[in-house]
Amino acid sequence: MIAVLKGGTTPEQTEHLVAWLKNMDLDVHISEGKEVTILGLIGDTTKVDMDLLKSLEIVDTVKRVSEPYKQVNRKFHPQDTVIEIGDVKIGGGHFAMIAGPCSVESHDQIIDVAEAVKKSGANILRGGAFKPRTSPYAFQGMKDEGIRLLLEAKKATGMPIITEIMNVRTLDLIENVDIIQVGARNMQNFDLLQELGKTRKPILLKRGLANTLQELLMSAEYIMSEGNENIILCERGIRTYETYTRNTLDLSAVPVLHELTHLPVVVDPSHATGKSSLVPAMSIAAAASGADGIMIEVHNNPACALCDGAQSLTPAQFDTLNARIQKVREAIV
Amino acid sequence: MIAVLKGGTTPEQTEHLVAWLKNMDLDVHISEGKEVTILGLIGDTTKVDMDLLKSLEIVDTVKRVSEPYKQVNRKFHPQDTVIEIGDVKIGGGHFAMIAGPCSVESHDQIIDVAEAVKKSGANILRGGAFKPRTSPYAFQGMKDEGIRLLLEAKKATGMPIITEIMNVRTLDLIENVDIIQVGARNMQNFDLLQELGKTRKPILLKRGLANTLQELLMSAEYIMSEGNENIILCERGIRTYETYTRNTLDLSAVPVLHELTHLPVVVDPSHATGKSSLVPAMSIAAAASGADGIMIEVHNNPACALCDGAQSLTPAQFDTLNARIQKVREAIV
Amino acid sequence: MIAVLKGGTTPEQTEHLVAWLKNMDLDVHISEGKEVTILGLIGDTTKVDMDLLKSLEIVDTVKRVSEPYKQVNRKFHPQDTVIEIGDVKIGGGHFAMIAGPCSVESHDQIIDVAEAVKKSGANILRGGAFKPRTSPYAFQGMKDEGIRLLLEAKKATGMPIITEIMNVRTLDLIENVDIIQVGARNMQNFDLLQELGKTRKPILLKRGLANTLQELLMSAEYIMSEGNENIILCERGIRTYETYTRNTLDLSAVPVLHELTHLPVVVDPSHATGKSSLVPAMSIAAAASGADGIMIEVHNNPACALCDGAQSLTPAQFDTLNARIQKVREAIV
Amino acid sequence: MIAVLKGGTTPEQTEHLVAWLKNMDLDVHISEGKEVTILGLIGDTTKVDMDLLKSLEIVDTVKRVSEPYKQVNRKFHPQDTVIEIGDVKIGGGHFAMIAGPCSVESHDQIIDVAEAVKKSGANILRGGAFKPRTSPYAFQGMKDEGIRLLLEAKKATGMPIITEIMNVRTLDLIENVDIIQVGARNMQNFDLLQELGKTRKPILLKRGLANTLQELLMSAEYIMSEGNENIILCERGIRTYETYTRNTLDLSAVPVLHELTHLPVVVDPSHATGKSSLVPAMSIAAAASGADGIMIEVHNNPACALCDGAQSLTPAQFDTLNARIQKVREAIV
Repeated sequence: MIAVLKGGTTPEQTEHLVAWLKNMDLDVHISEGKEVTILGLIGDTTKVDMDLLKSLEIVDTVKRVSEPYKQVNRKFHPQDTVIEIGDVKIGGGHFAMIAGPCSVESHDQIIDVAEAVKKSGANILRGGAFKPRTSPYAFQGMKDEGIRLLLEAKKATGMPIITEIMNVRTLDLIENVDIIQVGARNMQNFDLLQELGKTRKPILLKRGLANTLQELLMSAEYIMSEGNENIILCERGIRTYETYTRNTLDLSAVPVLHELTHLPVVVDPSHATGKSSLVPAMSIAAAASGADGIMIEVHNNPACALCDGAQSLTPAQFDTLNARIQKVREAIV
Repeated sequence: MIAVLKGGTTPEQTEHLVAWLKNMDLDVHISEGKEVTILGLIGDTTKVDMDLLKSLEIVDTVKRVSEPYKQVNRKFHPQDTVIEIGDVKIGGGHFAMIAGPCSVESHDQIIDVAEAVKKSGANILRGGAFKPRTSPYAFQGMKDEGIRLLLEAKKATGMPIITEIMNVRTLDLIENVDIIQVGARNMQNFDLLQELGKTRKPILLKRGLANTLQELLMSAEYIMSEGNENIILCERGIRTYETYTRNTLDLSAVPVLHELTHLPVVVDPSHATGKSSLVPAMSIAAAASGADGIMIEVHNNPACALCDGAQSLTPAQFDTLNARIQKVREAIV
Repeated sequence: MIAVLKGGTTPEQTEHLVAWLKNMDLDVHISEGKEVTILGLIGDTTKVDMDLLKSLEIVDTVKRVSEPYKQVNRKFHPQDTVIEIGDVKIGGGHFAMIAGPCSVESHDQIIDVAEAVKKSGANILRGGAFKPRTSPYAFQGMKDEGIRLLLEAKKATGMPIITEIMNVRTLDLIENVDIIQVGARNMQNFDLLQELGKTRKPILLKRGLANTLQELLMSAEYIMSEGNENIILCERGIRTYETYTRNTLDLSAVPVLHELTHLPVVVDPSHATGKSSLVPAMSIAAAASGADGIMIEVHNNPACALCDGAQSLTPAQFDTLNARIQKVREAIV
Repeated sequence: MIAVLKGGTTPEQTEHLVAWLKNMDLDVHISEGKEVTILGLIGDTTKVDMDLLKSLEIVDTVKRVSEPYKQVNRKFHPQDTVIEIGDVKIGGGHFAMIAGPCSVESHDQIIDVAEAVKKSGANILRGGAFKPRTSPYAFQGMKDEGIRLLLEAKKATGMPIITEIMNVRTLDLIENVDIIQVGARNMQNFDLLQELGKTRKPILLKRGLANTLQELLMSAEYIMSEGNENIILCERGIRTYETYTRNTLDLSAVPVLHELTHLPVVVDPSHATGKSSLVPAMSIAAAASGADGIMIEVHNNPACALCDGAQSLTPAQFDTLNARIQKVREAIV
């Protein structure tokens, strides 16, 4: 960690600060210049409150040179983490093909889609029961009943299931769910993260709309610091000025996260682009970038022409896409 | 509401859609062009699920021409809402000067700051007890004890107090707090908003780091749709590419929100800029823009040179600033 | 095109506006609602000045439902444009592998790199002679001498060359350059675009740091409206709040642009990420997304350990990468 | 300047680098840690090519602790620069009230508006002759004829005039213009900046849509490094995800720039907000933030109800606003 002191700092002030830092078992190297003085802090700086240090009158800037996260850091855990859900593995070369509808809508819908995507090669079923909606007047999901239907689809197909949780109070309800999804809006709901850290459930943690990759890793650290090491990170697009796509898919997150952490990284091109026509190209690109899995919305309701989601693929489209993804995965090995 | 249909839409598909829309008691005006067909939907469109409509195969784009929020909408409630907390009023010409430390740290600290800011003209005391921190290893606030100390400061000075809530489970704890703050990270924690909607406490709702003003109003609508009309909106800076300031204070939010809603709007220049040297200019500018209040961090701990927050003013600086703010407020009447 | 009129508009005002629009040979369909009136404008709306229309007192919003660009629009030119530079083709299934150093530094450097990348499979040589630099004190490129050395490398290897132009006054100088690059900062230098439109040189037009895809297409329309149809679009990352990568590579630009335009699209992962360790993954992802070419910085100067660019690959790394890119390209056919 | 070296750096590599740095007359202080080594570079670092240093294999990060700009830096020129145009002064307490139409449209229009705004208290007349437009099919301004009409308005009213230049080739044409405006899209058109640096004309340099304040200062440094010290900076809104306003006015730019530079800072609320209803509040806020001037679009064309720009005020609105601005300016002294 580096602290740059302001121009007019007196020797007494500097001494005072250096003494305080040494008290934290840090070595302090001082480089005095005409305009500024630079302190190099050497030792275990993870416990230094950077905001506090920054806030001192005499301090101009503070910069970490080692990462503020520990348990999720690849430096201290070089081998890939592999998440196991029954027979399905994610990470370390194991690929998750997660597919299913945005929302669970009915018994037949979820069973039909589950069977279709399983046949096409999906190994995890997704489906929303609790839906975070911008408007209080919009459909908020089937809730408890949606969870019940998901569990039926799990029973019928043998596929592990993933669904979103929005509230610690629903934790009991979803104890038979295989993977708990933390949505983008909850990435920094720290109380929720800590509760999930006390379980041993696999958690799929989505990057927030305006969060940096470091903040995503800090949120994973929240979960892991409570003892739960089963974390899957998910890039799902960030908010930018571009309006043609719903969000801007930041695929460079995949190689960046693979450098910084041992946790698996999946990509959600459906929510990122918001347009089904863009999902195939971005799914294939995600696989090529080295992602450990892809999460795709698939919908099937021939009886209701009104329900074909703008960002959902049909089972037939998913079938074609999955084959192409597998070919690309073979090509990059 | 306008729906634009894609080029190749068949007459049958258009009829099917129009019939569905008429079922919702909407009048549908059709403008057929060579490349596209435009549907004008007239009537109460607040219940139309825009995402569902958008998701139809034949629909190219959907655009609301009336706002998706109702209860917070100035159109249906032209006069300013005035929030009353004992003798203190906010909105409709009444100005809230909210001041206090970022975190409650000790009995003496909070009492001293409270007395100082009251003397300088503040009418509401702020202080953090539960602190959302990016890192699980950073100080998370004094929690229950912090609330207790805030209540002591309230008793000592007679000032109403405001503090942040991060979790519905702490609602009981803060029943004697006067204003509950929902932080930027929780602006779309819809479960929390709905719980707060069931109380009658004044809520200060901060704009999220990457949220539009319309999303802020939809979150206020979540609270109000449960029956709680005591909402204060707060602009506290948004996340942009500029790194010199911690966030980018979007002061145009003040006149925009005043056009769109009857709710009072306060500004938090301390969190927005992250630098105490910028707080005076931006506080004065906020007052000049027509804000109904300003929330400023003030810290006072002469015994500990290490604690003067980068974004906090000293009581003396606050005293000077408050006088200048009042002069500007008189000038713009 | 749709125009939504404000609530209080009088019948006379509406009539006045409708008459004006009909004068432009547009059919106007009127949908009158209680709160708003919607005008559907049918016909050739490309000449309607949207800003002017929007600026009218009585107009609330205006929305195009057909694109504001014509010549670059795939709707009116469904087949892919193929750019030909001697034997090298770009677009319509032909892939450009553009490689070379960020800046031309010396005769030996550019010849060595050119020979190395050619051997590894590159078919176009890149090299900067005029360098746009944020600071007036930074190295601005070898300028004329850089162009001369590039032409020598072209002669030595037979590869076509691409270099950036910053000013119409240097057009003469680069008449033997094969492809002229317009950098991100000049994407909306409209005078430069119009001058380049008067030539018949292939132009590689980079997306600006904060420009939408529609603005990129409008800039291409500037060139094409002057008669030059040889345009290659280039995604090179946009500016967001994320600071880990230099820019955020928006790979969804590739399928989006392929939907909207017939022009070829190449990707520059070196400038987008700013880190050589991320270039391989993002190059492979770009190829998988369907890009018509990739532009990669390659540097080779074993004598000077100080010059290995943060975003440049060595010739050996490029050799490995190119083989992987070709495998992915085969997999996605 | 600080350079952080990567973990595996060998002593020889460090020595090699340190020797190179000392060659540039820098003192180098070394802080060796287990994981990283920190170099503190003391001396005149403005000439160090930060990109080059960053690009070295062994270097992890480089951070400037002093600013990369010199001539525009307040540190080396503490007193405010005052720009003088005849009797009108800008900066150092002198306030510029710049008003006029977006585009010059006719003799009568520009004379009428000029006389109106002069009467209301404007001291500089603005008017666009060359208009940068996203679409090649949109009105591009009256060009030479527009300049001629502006000069007539100058003659008629005695007000100095400001207009935008897009191209060095039009420099001759505007030799009688008093202030040359560089638009947001040209903020990093470095060739144009250097040409303008060779004149002694006052330049109003607008911040680019996606440019940081440091980049704005570097562009001013480009002009000043060629000898022209007459520079006025202009905040005109940046591009963010918020779509309600055309841009997001970053008013904190005013106090930030006043800290960093001695140059005057004006604000353009018309372009920033894109809505005339927001212009008064943001103009008053800009004045309160300490701006050295405000640039406001004013339009007057009673004969043509179709031309009242969405972001333009009427002369009557401007008259009222100017009086309020003056009151606020008196209040903040």
